[in-house]
Amino acid sequence: MTFDSIRAIRWQNDQLRLLDQRVLPHQQVDVVCEDVNAVAEAIRNMVVRGAPAIGITAAYGVVLAARQRYRANAADWQQAVQADLDTMAKSRPTAVNLFWALARMSSLIAQLPAVIDPSDALIKEAQAIHAEDIAANQHMGRLGSGLIAPGSNILTHCNTGSLATGGFGTALGVIRQAYADHKLAQVYADETRPWLQGARLTAWELVQDKIPVTLIVEGAAAFLMKQQKVQWVILGADRITANGDVANKIGTYSLAVLARQHGVKFMVVAPTSTVDMKLATGDDIPIETRSADELLQLGNQRLAPQGVSAWNPVFDVTPAGLIDAIVTERGIVSLPNREKMLAMMQKQGT
Amino acid sequence: MTFDSIRAIRWQNDQLRLLDQRVLPHQQVDVVCEDVNAVAEAIRNMVVRGAPAIGITAAYGVVLAARQRYRANAADWQQAVQADLDTMAKSRPTAVNLFWALARMSSLIAQLPAVIDPSDALIKEAQAIHAEDIAANQHMGRLGSGLIAPGSNILTHCNTGSLATGGFGTALGVIRQAYADHKLAQVYADETRPWLQGARLTAWELVQDKIPVTLIVEGAAAFLMKQQKVQWVILGADRITANGDVANKIGTYSLAVLARQHGVKFMVVAPTSTVDMKLATGDDIPIETRSADELLQLGNQRLAPQGVSAWNPVFDVTPAGLIDAIVTERGIVSLPNREKMLAMMQKQGT
Repeated sequence: MTFDSIRAIRWQNDQLRLLDQRVLPHQQVDVVCEDVNAVAEAIRNMVVRGAPAIGITAAYGVVLAARQRYRANAADWQQAVQADLDTMAKSRPTAVNLFWALARMSSLIAQLPAVIDPSDALIKEAQAIHAEDIAANQHMGRLGSGLIAPGSNILTHCNTGSLATGGFGTALGVIRQAYADHKLAQVYADETRPWLQGARLTAWELVQDKIPVTLIVEGAAAFLMKQQKVQWVILGADRITANGDVANKIGTYSLAVLARQHGVKFMVVAPTSTVDMKLATGDDIPIETRSADELLQLGNQRLAPQGVSAWNPVFDVTPAGLIDAIVTERGIVSLPNREKMLAMMQKQGT
Repeated sequence: MTFDSIRAIRWQNDQLRLLDQRVLPHQQVDVVCEDVNAVAEAIRNMVVRGAPAIGITAAYGVVLAARQRYRANAADWQQAVQADLDTMAKSRPTAVNLFWALARMSSLIAQLPAVIDPSDALIKEAQAIHAEDIAANQHMGRLGSGLIAPGSNILTHCNTGSLATGGFGTALGVIRQAYADHKLAQVYADETRPWLQGARLTAWELVQDKIPVTLIVEGAAAFLMKQQKVQWVILGADRITANGDVANKIGTYSLAVLARQHGVKFMVVAPTSTVDMKLATGDDIPIETRSADELLQLGNQRLAPQGVSAWNPVFDVTPAGLIDAIVTERGIVSLPNREKMLAMMQKQGT
């Protein structure tokens, strides 16, 4: 398929290479991770971000951790590597894909024999997680595009593309597919303050893949909707609870309220690794608050005066009742609730 | 009164001095205007911004224009100065205070005798406009504060303070007064992309005047409201139509929809010079769209990749039905509509 040229997470020569998302779109630089601490730091510092991408990165982090522990003490590596899994689990609190990927790798570790080098088996598993994510995105792309009428305009938020996933993207995968299907008249992207994922990352991806995109400030979304310039808001998720509530980038809840008020449809696109059936509702999701400096300065440039404080929650929670469709690789949940989410999760994966 | 230390527009030594709002909060530099073209350019380039401040600046601009025309040709200055009024009228399209101030100065010009230096009379009129604006703001501050229950938190948008007016501010005047009245627990300010009036100007003013302020990104306003952390949204206006519709900084309409959904009260504070009874509804207000570069770059720093476009409307329209109170210097209009607006406008000024 065209419109799909970017891969931000690469396993090469027994190293993990991450395209550094902090310096895009100005520079294209890889951060090379050779041990687990480098991986945890890359997640914490947002070299890599996006819930599915964080999960895949952590899976490769487990490979690096296990290899090092095995070399240090072949008899004890399965025990010793637990500390590394804990380190990675603490790197970001909101995206559940991180914990999902660590649990899946941990489950394989428990099955592996001691005193045999686990590297090959773990690399294979991490690569499977990575490949499954891309396949899931491509499938979700087709499902989501199927919901969109030709000639539609879409508004998206944050970055949910190849940079946020193993490749192709969740919401941006739907946009890629809908564009390939000649359904898209116009893509609008929120610039997504404070980290500017929309202006820096989504715009960069779409320009790379030659899909036209128009940026707006978050404050303009309601005015755009009022003028009936968009038919869908399509975005991703960092965690979805058992009832279909969605934690996602700050600003998502705002768009959901505004979309409902203006008769604009609202679609959340995320793999089932994002779904946390252990949490009953969005009230149970831990919401990460990051440094005020992310808001008070931009790069090295100070925006606000000294002496001012900032509140910087980087996610919010959108109740299921404001969502028209949750698209996962197992199918579409229309007007999500607990029963429909459970039925979807009990389906076999594609 | 304390909490009121800033004046951004000053007439000194027969010159107009404008505090350059493009470089705040990092530098405090005056732009000195000695002729009408400098004034029009200062308005267009946003050295000065904010509807009331634009009106006052234009009034002083008329003084400079008339002085120059009179010196060039004492017999013909009243005729010749019309071109200068037109130049200023074209500098920004949305704020009606600009046209209001030009009309008031123009009306005085028509009454002045030819071949007598008009400078003193026009300076006096511009200074009266300026002083009346400050007095109106102080009066609106008391009216608005009267609506606020002790212990309230307020969210504001853009900058409506001493920088946006002759001094004291409209919405920020209410905030100054409410803080002096010990009613304010917390002020939240939207950073207000793309020009960052909140982060750069409102934060600077409040820090100068020792009123605590917490910045948020626009995307966080809905999440803030959902957590019941604010009781009022209070902001200004660039133009108010006969039915009570309000044109104001992009993002205002979004806040109005979100406030109504969350049971948060919504107050617009603006002098009657902002009211345009000639326009029936907000649909008739011309909305300024500015350069995409305001969104795609910040200062000299490029934010978005080359090849991306942006939609940059800098105002939006909030329908009267979403507004709990419009506060002017002639009184409070609760749940505004055409009849109540007309009744308020027919009252004598204070």
